[in-house]
Amino acid sequence: MSTQSNPKVRVGILGASGYTGADLIRLLLCHPNVDIVLLTAERKAGMTVDEVFPHLAGYGLPDLIAVSDIEWPAVELDVVFCALPHATSQEVIKGMMHTTGHGLLDEMIVETNADYADMMQGDVKIIDLSADFRLTDPNVYSQWYGREHSAKDLQSRAVYGLPELYRNHIKKAHLVACPGCYPTAALLALVPLLHAKVISTEDIIIDAKSGVSGAGRSLKEGNLYTEVAEAMHPYGIAHHRHMPEIEQELTLAAGRKVTISFTPHLVPMNRGELETIYVRMSDGQKAADIKQVWQDIYAEDEFIQILSGDVAPATRMVRGSNRCVLNAFDDRQTGRAIIVATIDNLVKGSSGQAVQNMNLMLGLDERTGLQQVPMFP
Amino acid sequence: MSTQSNPKVRVGILGASGYTGADLIRLLLCHPNVDIVLLTAERKAGMTVDEVFPHLAGYGLPDLIAVSDIEWPAVELDVVFCALPHATSQEVIKGMMHTTGHGLLDEMIVETNADYADMMQGDVKIIDLSADFRLTDPNVYSQWYGREHSAKDLQSRAVYGLPELYRNHIKKAHLVACPGCYPTAALLALVPLLHAKVISTEDIIIDAKSGVSGAGRSLKEGNLYTEVAEAMHPYGIAHHRHMPEIEQELTLAAGRKVTISFTPHLVPMNRGELETIYVRMSDGQKAADIKQVWQDIYAEDEFIQILSGDVAPATRMVRGSNRCVLNAFDDRQTGRAIIVATIDNLVKGSSGQAVQNMNLMLGLDERTGLQQVPMFP
Amino acid sequence: MSTQSNPKVRVGILGASGYTGADLIRLLLCHPNVDIVLLTAERKAGMTVDEVFPHLAGYGLPDLIAVSDIEWPAVELDVVFCALPHATSQEVIKGMMHTTGHGLLDEMIVETNADYADMMQGDVKIIDLSADFRLTDPNVYSQWYGREHSAKDLQSRAVYGLPELYRNHIKKAHLVACPGCYPTAALLALVPLLHAKVISTEDIIIDAKSGVSGAGRSLKEGNLYTEVAEAMHPYGIAHHRHMPEIEQELTLAAGRKVTISFTPHLVPMNRGELETIYVRMSDGQKAADIKQVWQDIYAEDEFIQILSGDVAPATRMVRGSNRCVLNAFDDRQTGRAIIVATIDNLVKGSSGQAVQNMNLMLGLDERTGLQQVPMFP
Amino acid sequence: MSTQSNPKVRVGILGASGYTGADLIRLLLCHPNVDIVLLTAERKAGMTVDEVFPHLAGYGLPDLIAVSDIEWPAVELDVVFCALPHATSQEVIKGMMHTTGHGLLDEMIVETNADYADMMQGDVKIIDLSADFRLTDPNVYSQWYGREHSAKDLQSRAVYGLPELYRNHIKKAHLVACPGCYPTAALLALVPLLHAKVISTEDIIIDAKSGVSGAGRSLKEGNLYTEVAEAMHPYGIAHHRHMPEIEQELTLAAGRKVTISFTPHLVPMNRGELETIYVRMSDGQKAADIKQVWQDIYAEDEFIQILSGDVAPATRMVRGSNRCVLNAFDDRQTGRAIIVATIDNLVKGSSGQAVQNMNLMLGLDERTGLQQVPMFP
Repeated sequence: MSTQSNPKVRVGILGASGYTGADLIRLLLCHPNVDIVLLTAERKAGMTVDEVFPHLAGYGLPDLIAVSDIEWPAVELDVVFCALPHATSQEVIKGMMHTTGHGLLDEMIVETNADYADMMQGDVKIIDLSADFRLTDPNVYSQWYGREHSAKDLQSRAVYGLPELYRNHIKKAHLVACPGCYPTAALLALVPLLHAKVISTEDIIIDAKSGVSGAGRSLKEGNLYTEVAEAMHPYGIAHHRHMPEIEQELTLAAGRKVTISFTPHLVPMNRGELETIYVRMSDGQKAADIKQVWQDIYAEDEFIQILSGDVAPATRMVRGSNRCVLNAFDDRQTGRAIIVATIDNLVKGSSGQAVQNMNLMLGLDERTGLQQVPMFP
Repeated sequence: MSTQSNPKVRVGILGASGYTGADLIRLLLCHPNVDIVLLTAERKAGMTVDEVFPHLAGYGLPDLIAVSDIEWPAVELDVVFCALPHATSQEVIKGMMHTTGHGLLDEMIVETNADYADMMQGDVKIIDLSADFRLTDPNVYSQWYGREHSAKDLQSRAVYGLPELYRNHIKKAHLVACPGCYPTAALLALVPLLHAKVISTEDIIIDAKSGVSGAGRSLKEGNLYTEVAEAMHPYGIAHHRHMPEIEQELTLAAGRKVTISFTPHLVPMNRGELETIYVRMSDGQKAADIKQVWQDIYAEDEFIQILSGDVAPATRMVRGSNRCVLNAFDDRQTGRAIIVATIDNLVKGSSGQAVQNMNLMLGLDERTGLQQVPMFP
Repeated sequence: MSTQSNPKVRVGILGASGYTGADLIRLLLCHPNVDIVLLTAERKAGMTVDEVFPHLAGYGLPDLIAVSDIEWPAVELDVVFCALPHATSQEVIKGMMHTTGHGLLDEMIVETNADYADMMQGDVKIIDLSADFRLTDPNVYSQWYGREHSAKDLQSRAVYGLPELYRNHIKKAHLVACPGCYPTAALLALVPLLHAKVISTEDIIIDAKSGVSGAGRSLKEGNLYTEVAEAMHPYGIAHHRHMPEIEQELTLAAGRKVTISFTPHLVPMNRGELETIYVRMSDGQKAADIKQVWQDIYAEDEFIQILSGDVAPATRMVRGSNRCVLNAFDDRQTGRAIIVATIDNLVKGSSGQAVQNMNLMLGLDERTGLQQVPMFP
Repeated sequence: MSTQSNPKVRVGILGASGYTGADLIRLLLCHPNVDIVLLTAERKAGMTVDEVFPHLAGYGLPDLIAVSDIEWPAVELDVVFCALPHATSQEVIKGMMHTTGHGLLDEMIVETNADYADMMQGDVKIIDLSADFRLTDPNVYSQWYGREHSAKDLQSRAVYGLPELYRNHIKKAHLVACPGCYPTAALLALVPLLHAKVISTEDIIIDAKSGVSGAGRSLKEGNLYTEVAEAMHPYGIAHHRHMPEIEQELTLAAGRKVTISFTPHLVPMNRGELETIYVRMSDGQKAADIKQVWQDIYAEDEFIQILSGDVAPATRMVRGSNRCVLNAFDDRQTGRAIIVATIDNLVKGSSGQAVQNMNLMLGLDERTGLQQVPMFP
């Protein structure tokens, strides 16, 4: 796609009043090929962006409307970001097929492997930021989400949107399911290692820490400043929903069933996520071998940064940017290593990765609009 | 200046290991017309940027060197940002004249009012972020800084770098003194009002609140996390050095001596500055008149945002951006108004404004490289 | 009252699931003369304290019940703290008279000036932490709270519970209205000065900053961690409800109508409140005169601490304690001074002051149970 | 010891200008049996406590002096808390023996197992908060601290001051080495489990998170507010000095060599420490068995709180208090459990535990002066 001659891509964001929506807007406003033409929000329908997000005032953004008030197909969207709650997302996306009149689903089923480069005008690209299309197995979905999936056909055909690992599939996809924030960091660290068999599939322990924006903008007592500040705690111990997602991808990479131990913690910061991952090495392998595997596979990936020596990744290295910073260390327990991965949960863990996926789906340089330098302090 | 045909502007940052330096780098890395070719830091000379600011790793920046190791004129700088401590700054800038061999001072004195547009190659543009060239009166300087100024000629000829107020002077300047962070917010709010005589010159009270990055990266007990977090306090009561700077400009605007009451407070946040300003209105004037004056004078100024209704400016509206957000409210005390102004102290209050000045000095659109959308949360 | 021979005072807290309730419990658990025998919470009725406030687990506290489930008079309360929302508070307190069967109101009306020392067994002492009984003028109440007061008799007879200023009245009171947090700091600083006429009644400007716990535990978007952290802003500009309360007491002290300018700000910290107060001095008076007035009037008040020299009060000096720290500074504007006052909004600004009032009402040393040393860091 | 008839215990704090010193003072000021008669600080010698810790102003504390200016034996200390840096501590404590003229070391060596109850008047009880006397093996000490221990006799005879595990030894001790903050939480959780053999000695992984006060008040760039706030990172990966200390005690409990994996993280909060510990269960054991072991061994320990059900320990449950909160969870990986332990690093992890040790050494109820209720928010 040439950005010179063509008009800008028309983008809509469904569920734009949450933090993911806000960060999508922040990033897309700096994207040279995009016009934001639609913003929805159910409870805040009718409000202006200025009212909902005063920091986004003055950019001429459209007012928020309800999903049911979208005028399909007059709005002529090229790309839709769904930043809706899970369960809602699958309903809305399923509905979009019919409403848009583009026959999206049929085409997807038939043409997943075709070259979509020249189909741009005819199809809406859907990038879902919810959990609804991440799990490929409907049984696993119903087990962890307590309900049947209502769009199983779409579920099985959505592409898992981790660009560094699924770049080619994403380029051809119509529906991309953006990974959860915790899975993003875990998989970028572990998938290449399991694939290269430098670490064992046994005893993978992921101790994850996240800033509060991961919990969204919803009104829960646990998210009040007074509950979070100057404090920290684990949550969802042994039953967090990002676990099956991580296991699905690790199992795929390892070629055998992987069961992880995963414990997330809430940390008093707005943004940022850091995972300390304890692994057992394959015989004779060392942390240096881990780093070599990363360097090989991520040689061309500008958003992946592998630290040298024993510098510890820190969330402040990635704040506001689409970076993932990695390092690995030999443990004192023989045969074990400690891996540390950090991302900004709202960028590489969510909105930034969504934009990266959009770029791939549109045939653009995947870094377009994503070159914000990390902000420190 | 056409960015197509011409080579990029060669920029050096003196004192690049502080937070002002880091934010200059963050902004300049996104500037399409600039190459950062020189970074200095005295105590950290010899270190790489990766070591000093890991969040800036991977951008191919030059290593830090000492000022004394700069190879003039081989480095061929077009623009120098001085983010040095005050007193040091005046020595270094004075020295640069001779070392660069460009006869900078002579030219400045002679040609301040000439058109420098075509002098680009021959002269170094100097943008000083210290306090050294903000005060025009050597006596005021020595009274507040406890020492004689050692470059009085330069002091009297430097241009005060508040673009919205001094745009034309800045365009022609060789040496620009960037305002302090507190003065920036105060002057953007008050100068037009005093000039338009909608407020009284008497009883101006500025209650200012700032994030901690304003104190820099120096090792002071008072800047430790444990001293600052979960706490706040005023400091420098009735003797802060930004007072004479504010008074100098207000006096100029009012055409008569203005003495202010100014009390800064340290607030537990990295970035952000907010000033609550209590003013006495001229007869019959209301908050609405204040807002009208601003709207008139700042009609073309994209970085100035005047809120409608009674929305209170909040630091989160400007975080990471070059914006200044303003609003005014009628007080309950008859004849008084309350003005609120907020900026990011590291951007509009320092590095962003410095880049804005550079753009003006180089004949570029002043917004170039400064269109970061505020980051929230 | 001898604590040796007598049984402990039976205390109930109505509205115990908020932060004020939590801090009341924290303080009362260390009070040697008190048993907490009743805790109510409407929405959390039926829950244990362990569930609502895990940090208070293990102290054998009663479960939370609804106000309507209190078994009067079987519960045999000696003291009731009302930490209910305003409007609710007046209804509940009015109702308590009849339900308890103690004829509280009649006695109050008749015997406000009598010595209640020996009436302990017969009467419930009520300490209200809401705004309902702070304003003595029903018209002012209805103007600021948008509704008629439903217990005007009680309103006019409640004692304003600022112990350092109303100690003797409090000792004899049956119903004490604890001051708001902002009024507490403002009045402790200003009442003695207006009374002694060292400052003018004109142009009093109070710039107040508060931690987030002042907003309570209610679910408002503006109180989420992500909205508050790393940010600050003013609110309620020129229409905050603590204004008429402050003015009522200042007017009383000055003997003439006082109208203030008052602007509160939300600061990212859990606890702590700091007010920077700009005053005009009476002829010839200086900051030193302010400090002398305080030293005289507060000579015996252990909770009031007047800093020497130019040390700035800081919220970290009072965290978790019942202290109020004060200092005064000559301003550069001739004839003006800057006063700084700080308290912990949950202790001296609320629960601690309530306990101090209880002590006075019970004839105990007012410091009993209130000698927590400030916690820093 | 009867607190009625006897005079108060005379206490000195060496190294009183750090946060550990401040919290010792905070706690001891509320201790009914103690007088603080000596405070030392090398760099701040000559300053008052008011200057160094304004929050401790007004308590009539002695001024800070240098250790070399202590007038032994005139000061007549009963108890000395050493809150000095490691290495310094061993020198000072060694020196105290001779300077005090009490022949402390000789008595210690000879009478470690004797009943010291009646020796109170003759001896100084020393409670060391540094790392100097925690490791019993001089080789381990020199390996981890890079220098020979200069008081090996004392090193081998000091009692490890974890009251819940070494109560009887502490009662008889003259020199107690308070555990590090990380070891305190880890050992309270793990020692009973290894002793009872419900968990394996293999594959113990401790992922620890700490507030910033653990780093002390020293001026390091990494401790600045701007470096810590809104960010987190691991540090000392695979080489933190608390590891050998934890291993020493776990090895003792298990009866065989235990090697742990230990990774501490810096979290933006003043106080609080939380450890997530991943363990392999012995055959057939479950999390419930872990909790049963704790309940049995800690039945009488008021400072240990074992949460019921699946409530996750959170640092806000212990802030400012001497509590340790524990819980255990079955992991999804068969045969593994996740243990969570939290303490306030400055209280149970340091100063509070030191006071608890003092109480035991003096024959007092070990809870004396330590019943601060956790402060939330």
